[in-house]
Amino acid sequence: MYLSKITVTLRKSILDPQGKAVEHGIHSLGFESVEDVRIGKFIELSVNASSKNEAELVTRDVCQKLLANPVMEDFSFVVEEVKED
Amino acid sequence: MYLSKITVTLRKSILDPQGKAVEHGIHSLGFESVEDVRIGKFIELSVNASSKNEAELVTRDVCQKLLANPVMEDFSFVVEEVKED
Repeated sequence: MYLSKITVTLRKSILDPQGKAVEHGIHSLGFESVEDVRIGKFIELSVNASSKNEAELVTRDVCQKLLANPVMEDFSFVVEEVKED
Repeated sequence: MYLSKITVTLRKSILDPQGKAVEHGIHSLGFESVEDVRIGKFIELSVNASSKNEAELVTRDVCQKLLANPVMEDFSFVVEEVKED
């Protein structure tokens, strides 16, 4: 069993109004030193695969087909083996 | 300048209906080997601080006060120094 940890982020050229709203909230709390807030998604999933390579292939496929919008978003992931008890 | 990369995840004991919906979508695409999908948030922000330690303190404070709901969510982050050109 493998655990994939995926981050999906908006491309740099895409405006992020949600990030701007959160940045405004952070400034309202008095943290003036914080800027350039950008919000993305974090997805964890388990993959039942016979090798790490296979788990990576499945994860990449799932990201490309469902989790990330290829026009607006980039994704990255790490795959870790999970020891089963 | 420092870049904080923050992940906010639902605690294990909290049901994640959004994750269940995505898992259903993944299965519909034919990836039967994927399970336990959980969705969280990924937040990137820049901190104008004089040391990495100060940037970490600001990031932790922002997470506790705004970004994560302490009842339902956990957060983790890494802080990287950004070289300015």
